[in-house]
Amino acid sequence: MSNLTFSVSGQSLSQTQLNARTLDFNILVDQPESFGDRNEAPSPVEYILAGLAGCVNVVAHLVADELQIKVSNLRIDVSGTLNTDKFLGKFTLERAGFLSIFVNIKAATDASDEKLTKWLSIIETRCPVKDTLGGSTPISLSLKRKVLEKYCV
Amino acid sequence: MSNLTFSVSGQSLSQTQLNARTLDFNILVDQPESFGDRNEAPSPVEYILAGLAGCVNVVAHLVADELQIKVSNLRIDVSGTLNTDKFLGKFTLERAGFLSIFVNIKAATDASDEKLTKWLSIIETRCPVKDTLGGSTPISLSLKRKVLEKYCV
Repeated sequence: MSNLTFSVSGQSLSQTQLNARTLDFNILVDQPESFGDRNEAPSPVEYILAGLAGCVNVVAHLVADELQIKVSNLRIDVSGTLNTDKFLGKFTLERAGFLSIFVNIKAATDASDEKLTKWLSIIETRCPVKDTLGGSTPISLSLKRKVLEKYCV
Repeated sequence: MSNLTFSVSGQSLSQTQLNARTLDFNILVDQPESFGDRNEAPSPVEYILAGLAGCVNVVAHLVADELQIKVSNLRIDVSGTLNTDKFLGKFTLERAGFLSIFVNIKAATDASDEKLTKWLSIIETRCPVKDTLGGSTPISLSLKRKVLEKYCV
């Protein structure tokens, strides 16, 4: 495998709730109460951060094996700050997305500092989600008008 | 509110599984069987795409209200292609992350084409997740060695 395509089919359930169907799962997306909904599921940006943590976990283990580093008790905390002004339609010079994201990895290991620095730097390069968020990914939005069938009874 | 910080605490459960704890929820992240795990939850990249669909849903409704457009039956399908070579440590000139992402919105609406074009263009600008994935977000990775306590019994 080289090129792989991933997709989700999202059905809007309300102004803030969406059910995203993957090949095998449903991911319910919602917003906190402060944004006016029921807070029944994580928010879009929380899923982004969780995806980043999950991806770092996979790459961290993969690269640790390659470098013959033993790591255990891996903890990956991710946080990001964004300015909501643009999202809310207020005038701002800030971007809409995360201004910065911090990934803090904690691991129990007896590897040398030198090996750990190498480990971290390879994780950073090879993590698909880190690269997606950190680089510029071309995103195209397209719109199709849906015709609602009318049933006359 | 202007600046908001979101965070998840991720606990690695295996080489591919991670539980990301948000303020109110647990997000289980896994990998497909083809990557060697149990496929018990969506993958990191599927969460990224679901987060994008969920965010577009929120902004689409927000902006439709502002433009006084009625939309219903909103469906937001998102797909992205990535090359797995870099992730797997093979030599490649391709990036690790998504090469491109497509967002297809379907909506039942009687708004004019002109208004819909404006709608789409504002969604694109104001969606925090679209802006995060599409722009360059500074991401810092840091590492802390964890000391495992030893219990002698």
